[in-house]
Amino acid sequence: MRDLLLQNTRPMGGPLADILIRDGRIAAIGPTLAAEGVAIEDADGRIAIPGLVDAHTHLDKSLLGYPWYVNEVGPKLIDKIDNERKVKKDYGLDAHIQSMRQSLQSVGYGTTLIRTHVDIDTDQGLIALEGVMETRRQLADVVEIEIVAFPQSGLMRRAGTAELLDRAMAMGADLVGGLDPCGMDRDPKGHLDTIFALAEKHGKGIDIHLHESGELGAFSMELIFERIRSLGLQGKVAVSHAFCLGHGDWTMTQALIDTCAELDVPILTTAPPSREVPSLKRLRAAGVRFGAGVDGFRDTWGPYGNGDMLERAMLLGMKNNLRRDDELLMALDVCTTGGAVAMDRTQHALTVGGRGDVVIVEGETVGEAIVTHQPRSLVVTAGHVVARHGVTLRERP
Amino acid sequence: MRDLLLQNTRPMGGPLADILIRDGRIAAIGPTLAAEGVAIEDADGRIAIPGLVDAHTHLDKSLLGYPWYVNEVGPKLIDKIDNERKVKKDYGLDAHIQSMRQSLQSVGYGTTLIRTHVDIDTDQGLIALEGVMETRRQLADVVEIEIVAFPQSGLMRRAGTAELLDRAMAMGADLVGGLDPCGMDRDPKGHLDTIFALAEKHGKGIDIHLHESGELGAFSMELIFERIRSLGLQGKVAVSHAFCLGHGDWTMTQALIDTCAELDVPILTTAPPSREVPSLKRLRAAGVRFGAGVDGFRDTWGPYGNGDMLERAMLLGMKNNLRRDDELLMALDVCTTGGAVAMDRTQHALTVGGRGDVVIVEGETVGEAIVTHQPRSLVVTAGHVVARHGVTLRERP
Repeated sequence: MRDLLLQNTRPMGGPLADILIRDGRIAAIGPTLAAEGVAIEDADGRIAIPGLVDAHTHLDKSLLGYPWYVNEVGPKLIDKIDNERKVKKDYGLDAHIQSMRQSLQSVGYGTTLIRTHVDIDTDQGLIALEGVMETRRQLADVVEIEIVAFPQSGLMRRAGTAELLDRAMAMGADLVGGLDPCGMDRDPKGHLDTIFALAEKHGKGIDIHLHESGELGAFSMELIFERIRSLGLQGKVAVSHAFCLGHGDWTMTQALIDTCAELDVPILTTAPPSREVPSLKRLRAAGVRFGAGVDGFRDTWGPYGNGDMLERAMLLGMKNNLRRDDELLMALDVCTTGGAVAMDRTQHALTVGGRGDVVIVEGETVGEAIVTHQPRSLVVTAGHVVARHGVTLRERP
Repeated sequence: MRDLLLQNTRPMGGPLADILIRDGRIAAIGPTLAAEGVAIEDADGRIAIPGLVDAHTHLDKSLLGYPWYVNEVGPKLIDKIDNERKVKKDYGLDAHIQSMRQSLQSVGYGTTLIRTHVDIDTDQGLIALEGVMETRRQLADVVEIEIVAFPQSGLMRRAGTAELLDRAMAMGADLVGGLDPCGMDRDPKGHLDTIFALAEKHGKGIDIHLHESGELGAFSMELIFERIRSLGLQGKVAVSHAFCLGHGDWTMTQALIDTCAELDVPILTTAPPSREVPSLKRLRAAGVRFGAGVDGFRDTWGPYGNGDMLERAMLLGMKNNLRRDDELLMALDVCTTGGAVAMDRTQHALTVGGRGDVVIVEGETVGEAIVTHQPRSLVVTAGHVVARHGVTLRERP
């Protein structure tokens, strides 16, 4: 049964209303709706929000289910990348099992749409992609998973990686990934030409990890802009992290932000407290599509995080110094509907005709729900109850 | 009964050991201790850490127990300050009740030592101080509370405030407070001369809120250093926030940090994700005493926070990009023993002779305990069980 009547909710903290979901879509929102032949859930006056959207994570690399990973990794980026490949081998890490564990944990927190980057490298080949694709298949009724083929260990510096990315796209990855064209690959032209050619060949979009900050990041952004313009890929290329958009030089940064708006380049943040990050209000004012994600967590990179996008809305708010309740609503939008729009999903909203993804949360107001991020009372995907009291109904491996 | 045998703990995540507390002090730590005539608690292999130390908060201004405060306050500092005085009157806020609520919530999270700033201004006079002093008296067996007489609404700009601070110190406040001598009072010389004179007169220390960043904060720091030197107040003057120590100009910042070390100026941070903050590793490398606090929370200033110093250790770690487990131990030290040292308490440690304040936390390692900050299993103050399963044993008003 895919039809569901959610009674006594407060959509976005507003007045009491029922929400009727039919055939996976929201059919009606209003006081005391009646419907026959549908399942009924009573929210008992709790707040309803859209399904949470994790627009940037790494389902294939969490160590969930393993003992605590004692991190003794060196300070450089390459230390972390090389260490991770070694640990994966030592553990015999299975990307399918790990992505099942993380996805279901996220579903328990109310996430119904995920964009995940999946490592493609010449050590492990396409096995992680196969594993995450199997998870996507098994969880299709529970959470929508979009896959980026991600050259985590570099592209130009490891011969054979471009060919693997090509095969990944042919197998069914949704987007071509990239990573720090200057800082990682030391060949920005080679790196970007390669991934843009793959995107063109397969008719797919791109999502590039850009940690490069300040002027270096601005340079890489300009190279990206040039290729979007010349290839007509407006709206098809997203940039993750984009720390350079948080740089203190207002003029330089504004020019980049304005170009993101002009070329419709969505920006996806994880709002790390330790870095300069793109400003939520500034990007929205410029009309840039903007989403957020939990990034990898409980992996060899670092210990923080749990998959909770409601907690991420809090961190996004804290990072952006959002204190007013109307500002907290903006943070939640980035973690729900706004993030979905950044992923080209325009129907992911708590409105009639929207996808029937609804999360019932605890709190007097949306602000309190974000700040306290208590266990979710109920999670509904396309009209189907998938989690209760913070726990997914599917058994985790 | 103040004597307690804590069995089967893992102090700081190490091997199993018992902890014996006699007369409020740790008398022994070792495997299978025996003791007669003492209370016994079994930690069942859980980790023991020292009592958490909240070195910077505002017990008098939380709105805990009231409905969610919908924040519609303007963007400027003075908007927030003026709004708060108005809300206090509208609500008839009782500083005793609010400080009881916050203190006991913090005790539930394992905090056993608190430094609180208490508002002193010409609207409310000394009533908040009286209320927090009553809380300190009532909770003396549960949590140690140190009080800073804090001119939140300004000192030079509101005639009569200096006299109130003088009376506050005579009544029993522990330290003289200050606030942004340039940015708030527009008279740094007047502001600092006044609070240093009060500290000298009463033979007490100082704790100054310094939000001023960059060069302005550096200027205020220099004025503070000059007065410490000329009055011989080394070790007696702490600076809270000190955002200027996180400024990007390495040379300027290092000179300030070195002078903090030379004049023994403790720095107290709340690690806000949105600001440049003093670097944990850099301050510790210079030998500067360094503590942390939750700041005010659930008040008219902003919605975030809950009093949990284990969560604050996580935020401190995230802000400082600490990823290794040995780095997480540093973050915890700042939120326990290190913070106490910054408050001149040298016996607040999980060692024989240390104060009998112990918190039993959930997690395989200290790192996991910080990252997941699950409800505390047990909180012990001076050998006395004060909270179980995250809830204080004292009834909250």
